[in-house]
Amino acid sequence: MGFKYRDGLKGVTRSPLKVIEDERGAVMHMMRNDHPMCHDFGEIYFSKINHGFLKGWKRHKKMTQNFTAPFGQVTLIILDLRDGSDTYDHYTMINIGHPAHYQLVTIEPNLWYAFFASSQEGAILANFTDLPHDPLESEQLPIDHFHVEDIPSSLVS
Amino acid sequence: MGFKYRDGLKGVTRSPLKVIEDERGAVMHMMRNDHPMCHDFGEIYFSKINHGFLKGWKRHKKMTQNFTAPFGQVTLIILDLRDGSDTYDHYTMINIGHPAHYQLVTIEPNLWYAFFASSQEGAILANFTDLPHDPLESEQLPIDHFHVEDIPSSLVS
Repeated sequence: MGFKYRDGLKGVTRSPLKVIEDERGAVMHMMRNDHPMCHDFGEIYFSKINHGFLKGWKRHKKMTQNFTAPFGQVTLIILDLRDGSDTYDHYTMINIGHPAHYQLVTIEPNLWYAFFASSQEGAILANFTDLPHDPLESEQLPIDHFHVEDIPSSLVS
Repeated sequence: MGFKYRDGLKGVTRSPLKVIEDERGAVMHMMRNDHPMCHDFGEIYFSKINHGFLKGWKRHKKMTQNFTAPFGQVTLIILDLRDGSDTYDHYTMINIGHPAHYQLVTIEPNLWYAFFASSQEGAILANFTDLPHDPLESEQLPIDHFHVEDIPSSLVS
């Protein structure tokens, strides 16, 4: 009993993102209108994540999420409970952050997800969606609703 | 001789942005498809700004910039050298950052701009544009090209 880890899930896509660095800082790409994961533009917002907290669980019925982390390190946990999915009952964990793991993670609708800051200074998660926020389209469950063994227990108690 | 300060320029718009905070962090809005400043979606990218550097000067011929700062504090300097503009020969300075100055700053084409991190830890500037990056559409000049007296001299020497 318990969810099984898998390196990737059906409906989760990781895309590399370009970073151009110099002594002044960096230019860090996120999304362009010709990116394969760009369909409609709904909204772009940020989730500031304080260290020590898990944010989730959340599931969207219609909206696709496109995540990256321009500041700090984020660990994203995604759980597949979709009937008939090839990766049903599995979860994956993805590290996002500059410089080691700067990437775009696209999550199709109907997957559950949660995230926490794995860096002491907290983190900023950016989310580019294909629909604007609509409370009727999303569901939330308490952080202790699903037991995923790779999530540090200090975050769910 | 020198540019004159003005609290705002023709073609520069400041829009308040909503922040919803709790102990876990915050949700910080940036742009939605029904925002008055949202026309086309071209690109969203981040500028990581190390403390002690001025980034600029830059001018776009066609592209509109929509800036906010999800991490750190940014000072944005905008200079109007457009022939016939009501605010010709003036500049403005705008602080952007959470929590005190979290806002969206929209800059129409043909205004010159530069920015620096006013926080010791550096800053992240997010830019939502109506066109994807096109080097033929933008111009750059060295940071010491324009003398703006409110820019700390340590940044331009």
